Amino acid sequence: MQIISENTCFGGLQGVYSHASKTTGTNMTFGLFLPVEAKDGPVPVLWYLSGLTCTHENAMIKAGAQVWAAEQGIALVFPDTSPRGESVADDDAYDLGQGAGFYVNATETPWATHFQMYDYVAHDLPELIFAEFALDSNRQGVTGHSMGGHGALTLAMTLPGRFRAVSAFSPICHPAKSDWGRKQFTAYLGKDESRWEGHDATLLMREHGFDGPVLTDTGTKDQFIDLLMPEALAEAIAARRQQAVLRMQPGYDHSYFFVQSFIEDHVAFHAEALWA
Amino acid sequence: MQIISENTCFGGLQGVYSHASKTTGTNMTFGLFLPVEAKDGPVPVLWYLSGLTCTHENAMIKAGAQVWAAEQGIALVFPDTSPRGESVADDDAYDLGQGAGFYVNATETPWATHFQMYDYVAHDLPELIFAEFALDSNRQGVTGHSMGGHGALTLAMTLPGRFRAVSAFSPICHPAKSDWGRKQFTAYLGKDESRWEGHDATLLMREHGFDGPVLTDTGTKDQFIDLLMPEALAEAIAARRQQAVLRMQPGYDHSYFFVQSFIEDHVAFHAEALWA
Repeated sequence: MQIISENTCFGGLQGVYSHASKTTGTNMTFGLFLPVEAKDGPVPVLWYLSGLTCTHENAMIKAGAQVWAAEQGIALVFPDTSPRGESVADDDAYDLGQGAGFYVNATETPWATHFQMYDYVAHDLPELIFAEFALDSNRQGVTGHSMGGHGALTLAMTLPGRFRAVSAFSPICHPAKSDWGRKQFTAYLGKDESRWEGHDATLLMREHGFDGPVLTDTGTKDQFIDLLMPEALAEAIAARRQQAVLRMQPGYDHSYFFVQSFIEDHVAFHAEALWA
Repeated sequence: MQIISENTCFGGLQGVYSHASKTTGTNMTFGLFLPVEAKDGPVPVLWYLSGLTCTHENAMIKAGAQVWAAEQGIALVFPDTSPRGESVADDDAYDLGQGAGFYVNATETPWATHFQMYDYVAHDLPELIFAEFALDSNRQGVTGHSMGGHGALTLAMTLPGRFRAVSAFSPICHPAKSDWGRKQFTAYLGKDESRWEGHDATLLMREHGFDGPVLTDTGTKDQFIDLLMPEALAEAIAARRQQAVLRMQPGYDHSYFFVQSFIEDHVAFHAEALWA
């Protein structure tokens, strides 16, 4: 693991690190905020999964999460959204290839070689950070924005017992039925739609649900709301009687100005579950 | 005035606007955060002047100021740091020309044509925003970072009665004696150092002081601290018996991770003066 940068932040440390990932076969970069309490021992950790086009850096800089994580004494992890590099497959479109890993393990050519983002976020990166930093693996939560909201919800439901709580900002809720999903799942996972089911939050909610609290925020003026399909997840949550708070926030759009407006609530929501 | 973007943020509005400036002879872009209270009438306003290489956008995205401005019900203005454009003079160095206006009115060739940033921030932009938005010109404060901290302090002391409070993050304190200052003042104002005095916070503090509270934060691990010369301003403030709080923050550097760690204090400091 290499240190890219470390800055004192709210008395703790905002670091950026890179490491050679066996899972993706590339060097991967991630951000990690450690509150001051991590100097005295392991702290709970909240994963923040980012959206299309983002790197590890976007949310780290623009979400305004550190102030609340510092207040609650919890760490934040900001993984990248895909493998990167000249030798890594890519596509001209912003929503496929580098910056658009969709948190799945690709099985199709040419993506399968490096695009193993589910395993990277679920196994590879956790192994590294729990070995290297003062983080409590028994106290984990997960959140994310847009494609990262999809990632948060699908990881939470496919790794039972891993996360105590899950939340999402403007998540892609039903990718198997959306143009933000069908294109990518076809490319990464192939045309057999039965293989998509483990990566669709609405389908997972219908089948499995989540053993803990769920919080989602979506802006009523979100310019991508037709692609997000919050109505599909809302229906599935209500039908399942899943413990959840689904909020439609009047006037807000898809931007980080929306995320920062409600990140305090999300960090507090996770902190309540993580410190319980 | 043209709207570049408007996003709902903390119930208020984060806007970006451009306008043709008579002062700089260019189109200028600025950011403006309006808290929800501005829907009901004029609100106090805090100016945030940015540092070298920054545009209107850096602090707007990375300082984490909106959350506290929303809490206090005050607006934030984020001006650009220089005129810009292909027809505008520039220099290969990051610390001269575009992105490095230093909040002075240039008198020397080729800078004098467009680099009139003192008048732009002191007169041109205020005239526009108080005409266009629900802002209370009798309740203004000013802050800034690095070169913008220099700008905040020098504007506050050269416009008596304008600002009720002034604060700064890692300000350039004594540019007439620093390599962050001598180069630029020579280029913009000429070699006669007597013409620099109105743009040096330490010299202004010795001569005039400020009729109100002053707050500064500087990191003890600031990688540019020798260029900032906080000791010069500290000496001048103490010698003058100026009302002030000067804080040296252990471990922090020059980055926005430092700024965001203490922006709550600065917004609260201004709010106390602005709502008095």
